[in-house]
Amino acid sequence: MYDIVIIGSGPAGLSASIYAKRAGLKAVTLEQSPMSGGQVLTTYEVDNYPGLPGINGFDLGMKFREHADKLGCEFKNAEVLAIRKINAEAQIKESGAQLRAASIESRIQEEMKEKEEAGFVLETDNGPVRTKTVLAAMGATHAKLGIPGESDFTGKGVSYCATCDGAFFRGRVTAVIGGGDVAVEDAIFLARGCEKVYLIHRRDELRAAAILQKELMSLPNVEILWDTVAERIEGEGTVQKLAVKNVKTGREKALLVDGVFVAVGIIPSSHIMKGAADCDEKGYLIAGEDCVTSTPGIFAAGDIRTKKLRQIVTAAADGANAITSVLEYFTAG
Amino acid sequence: MYDIVIIGSGPAGLSASIYAKRAGLKAVTLEQSPMSGGQVLTTYEVDNYPGLPGINGFDLGMKFREHADKLGCEFKNAEVLAIRKINAEAQIKESGAQLRAASIESRIQEEMKEKEEAGFVLETDNGPVRTKTVLAAMGATHAKLGIPGESDFTGKGVSYCATCDGAFFRGRVTAVIGGGDVAVEDAIFLARGCEKVYLIHRRDELRAAAILQKELMSLPNVEILWDTVAERIEGEGTVQKLAVKNVKTGREKALLVDGVFVAVGIIPSSHIMKGAADCDEKGYLIAGEDCVTSTPGIFAAGDIRTKKLRQIVTAAADGANAITSVLEYFTAG
Repeated sequence: MYDIVIIGSGPAGLSASIYAKRAGLKAVTLEQSPMSGGQVLTTYEVDNYPGLPGINGFDLGMKFREHADKLGCEFKNAEVLAIRKINAEAQIKESGAQLRAASIESRIQEEMKEKEEAGFVLETDNGPVRTKTVLAAMGATHAKLGIPGESDFTGKGVSYCATCDGAFFRGRVTAVIGGGDVAVEDAIFLARGCEKVYLIHRRDELRAAAILQKELMSLPNVEILWDTVAERIEGEGTVQKLAVKNVKTGREKALLVDGVFVAVGIIPSSHIMKGAADCDEKGYLIAGEDCVTSTPGIFAAGDIRTKKLRQIVTAAADGANAITSVLEYFTAG
Repeated sequence: MYDIVIIGSGPAGLSASIYAKRAGLKAVTLEQSPMSGGQVLTTYEVDNYPGLPGINGFDLGMKFREHADKLGCEFKNAEVLAIRKINAEAQIKESGAQLRAASIESRIQEEMKEKEEAGFVLETDNGPVRTKTVLAAMGATHAKLGIPGESDFTGKGVSYCATCDGAFFRGRVTAVIGGGDVAVEDAIFLARGCEKVYLIHRRDELRAAAILQKELMSLPNVEILWDTVAERIEGEGTVQKLAVKNVKTGREKALLVDGVFVAVGIIPSSHIMKGAADCDEKGYLIAGEDCVTSTPGIFAAGDIRTKKLRQIVTAAADGANAITSVLEYFTAG
């Protein structure tokens, strides 16, 4: 039985692993992907994680993982399918055989302790894992546009990660859809290699950081289409055309593009937590800075929890705060 | 007039500088010390800032500062002596002369804007600084024991930083006072070079992380005195003796030591903020994860604010969150 199972190994999960190890907790971090790092892995350049300026996202992910490995943190490749609360009574009954083998006094004490600490069983594709506490640090994934052609052409010109796939579009024409930091970063990144990049944004101003906007505006091969939404992706085998519509004039037009990069936000990877702890209407686990959820013993860190600013450094801070709350939970228990 | 003045250049202040620059804010960071980094500078080894395992505190401080420098953040060496709110009316009157020189329409608009944004004047030892918002990121300093001999022998055997001064006590006998992470880290650090190290703790268990306690217990030249308080520091010219008392038995004894390292906690460097924004009874600026204080336009990040866990990574996260709140303040204004 673990003290804590950390689900996910992005910045929040890895930071939590580091803090858990240093706190002497029996911890394991479960990761369903073959690699740690989460969304960071697919970020071209990270320039706002203090202390590591201008680092490649992949390298930053690796550095976080290496840090945890260096401290001897335990990892397991597993996808969590369901979380089940262990009934305190049942758990004590289960361990009845062992009870008889030990001295009565010490076992009674342990029994009382186990009762208080009755935890969770995580059903995974790699067998069940028993734990006293759970830290949900699964982060989030890319939101879809939900327009015709999007899913058909995914991997055939439609991408959610310019850093990963941009190189395939060298010398060609691409469109980025979105108006936040990621969309603008993607457009800047693509403009380095593409003949032309359209940035399609449904509003008349960008949400992205001013420094990014400034850089974007300076690029001669980027054209911004304001007040415009993507309607349809078309092609033969691969993407050839993106139909867009101006939401103010209602006018449609077709852009001849080879690639469409979707950067319209993220959705929390919280589906396995539904029912286990309270989520908000968008699916974020409701938790404050202390990472404490509505369910005693379940904690949430990083992009998956309700918070204002989802950044690498705020996810890493969550990992530290979550472990502090876990320790308090054990002390209070 | 700056958009934001960041007071202090520890991890919180430097992270805020980075985020402010990337957000396109006109920002300056004021530091009273000749060097950036804050308390980090005097930490021997930092092993819990994710991504930079086992780094020397001084090096980490430098890395944070270099990151800010690389982005072109503005710094100024200045000690803030007082913060004064600019009266909106007064400010408009002050700029009356300039008003007449400009077109009426545009000036009226600016006047309205200035009225809303009436900010602060920071009186410093390097002249006044005008700003729309203030981020208090001055961190905290070492708490004193308040026992006879402490101030007399400071710098003559009494130290608040084992990393800074430990090397002077190679082959000699030292005592560390405290029971938290820093105290145990100090004892471990000193044990590398000292003949013997006493750890004096007033309770019968340490608050320090388990991993640190384990390392401490493994050291043959460390002796822990439980339930013990320091009473008096004595010597001739330099420290020679530390009088201690067991709080349970009342028994006193004198330890022959060459150095006394005090690690009994920190106190927030918030004196200039008193009256400017609400502080709690310990002097911490009252602010949540969003770093918003009781006074509109004043924000608090890092060790100086009310929070559960004061770590480098949580301070760095504060810097990011504070700038997000500053941007929201301007948008809402």
